[in-house]
Amino acid sequence: MKYYAGIDLGGTYIKCGIVSADGQLIIKDKIPTGSERPYIEIAEDMAKLVKSLEAKSGVTVEAVGIGSPGTVNSKKGIIVYSNNIEWENVPLGDCIGNMLQIPVFITNDANAAALGESYMGAGKKFNSIVLITLGTGVGGGIVLDGKLYEGGYSAGAELGHTVIRMKGEKCTCGRRGCFEAYASATALINSTKAAMKKNPESLMWHICGGVIDNVDGKTPFDAMQQGDKAAKKVVNEYVRYLGEGITNVCNVFRPDAVLLGGGVCAQGETLLKPLRKYVKRNIFGGVAYAPVKILTATLGNDAGIYGAARLAMCGLNRN
Amino acid sequence: MKYYAGIDLGGTYIKCGIVSADGQLIIKDKIPTGSERPYIEIAEDMAKLVKSLEAKSGVTVEAVGIGSPGTVNSKKGIIVYSNNIEWENVPLGDCIGNMLQIPVFITNDANAAALGESYMGAGKKFNSIVLITLGTGVGGGIVLDGKLYEGGYSAGAELGHTVIRMKGEKCTCGRRGCFEAYASATALINSTKAAMKKNPESLMWHICGGVIDNVDGKTPFDAMQQGDKAAKKVVNEYVRYLGEGITNVCNVFRPDAVLLGGGVCAQGETLLKPLRKYVKRNIFGGVAYAPVKILTATLGNDAGIYGAARLAMCGLNRN
Repeated sequence: MKYYAGIDLGGTYIKCGIVSADGQLIIKDKIPTGSERPYIEIAEDMAKLVKSLEAKSGVTVEAVGIGSPGTVNSKKGIIVYSNNIEWENVPLGDCIGNMLQIPVFITNDANAAALGESYMGAGKKFNSIVLITLGTGVGGGIVLDGKLYEGGYSAGAELGHTVIRMKGEKCTCGRRGCFEAYASATALINSTKAAMKKNPESLMWHICGGVIDNVDGKTPFDAMQQGDKAAKKVVNEYVRYLGEGITNVCNVFRPDAVLLGGGVCAQGETLLKPLRKYVKRNIFGGVAYAPVKILTATLGNDAGIYGAARLAMCGLNRN
Repeated sequence: MKYYAGIDLGGTYIKCGIVSADGQLIIKDKIPTGSERPYIEIAEDMAKLVKSLEAKSGVTVEAVGIGSPGTVNSKKGIIVYSNNIEWENVPLGDCIGNMLQIPVFITNDANAAALGESYMGAGKKFNSIVLITLGTGVGGGIVLDGKLYEGGYSAGAELGHTVIRMKGEKCTCGRRGCFEAYASATALINSTKAAMKKNPESLMWHICGGVIDNVDGKTPFDAMQQGDKAAKKVVNEYVRYLGEGITNVCNVFRPDAVLLGGGVCAQGETLLKPLRKYVKRNIFGGVAYAPVKILTATLGNDAGIYGAARLAMCGLNRN
């Protein structure tokens, strides 16, 4: 059996796992990123982490895959720009490749997660899936006919940065009205707080112990389930925005499934049921001919590791 | 030399051309569609048109490609649904294949046009292009690494039906705020008329001879060039909407070039210059790393013929 290392490089942690050629995650570990350090030190830690997992598990890996935040030049293995780790033109691929003397492949972290879900998660039985991760921002990853689609120069698939409401809310990317500005967990929390300020009698205050900074993505859902009207309005509006963005994705890619990741998805059917209804009503040409499933992702925080390992497995074919 | 027939099936005309394996359109002709007739009669006319062009040019074609309006199941050669010709589940591929006894390949008309521009038009020197056709509606066609991308079940690439302004203008697809509802020639004409009604002194009235129904996509551009302020506002607003939709396309596909087709593009640099500026300012991560050219299409009404012929050339590989 052959083995591959998958690294999920984040602003806070470097997570690494070893995945066998038949898709089993046999060992994993994480260490702090220390993102303020020179990149060469971070790269050294990444290589050491791979080595230590090899030693602990007793296997040798054939190649390493990395999911990195920011814009990645996959062909050259360069992190072109990352806001998260403040990197610019870092030749991470060559760097780690020289240390380990095995092939290294890099993609954007959202892409890696999508490839992971497609390989061993909720997308396993589908040809084409789009993963939309609802976190601080909205990440997009696209797998078409089993292959990762990164856009030209690996700089596409920025689904969070497509405008759904022109002249709307300010987005971190500089535009107004991006999908991310409405469908991220951050956006949900902001609109929850706004609704609470407007509704001092809302149950949401009780749920977060009277402290508005305790609000999280669960708050409006919990209050809604207890019959709070203001919370229901927040959730309904959130579903509409999310539904609008997902419908756009469906009309462009018409994937077999759209998978949702991120903490908000813990709501499961409470979120999915109205979303499916919204998309069914709005998708181009209806769903009789080419239906699209809407499901939650299943690999959680390991999606990036699985995807990065899969990238290592398939190399530039990116299956 | 081998030869291939390309058919551009429209609601009004059936256009057909024969293209050589080196990309030369050697002969073309068109006949009325007569779209109210049974489909078998239309298919017979299509086959006869191919035969007559073969006879006139003295060559024999290897295969036929067809660009058809509506949703097309490319794999099965079936027109699933066409609003334009009022067809549902028409097995056009088998039908014409049986008549001519050569392979027949079908795709959506917007896809065929994109493949044509990519093959012999403005997209010739690029790997990946997106063609956006600004007509009665907004058509989208996507060519990635030289291959036509139609979305799952060939039902994607509906770029005109992605919402850019939620809760905005009503679209023909049933949603509100679609790119098509703002960037089509129809939308431009509507907003021109609205501006004229608000501005009885506008030069636009003069340009269309005082008759509002004479307004076309040129009207606001002509008036703007003569210094009319209301017209300038109409054009600026149109550019913003178009720019917003194009920026979305760039952030998803990051193609080498976005090509614009349709009558409005006759405006050339008057339209392109402010558009480029808009996209440059709004595209994700700026244009230093992965720039996207914005150009007008060059094959005009022949794009569909070239693309359909190219489809015939490459068959299901769809290069």
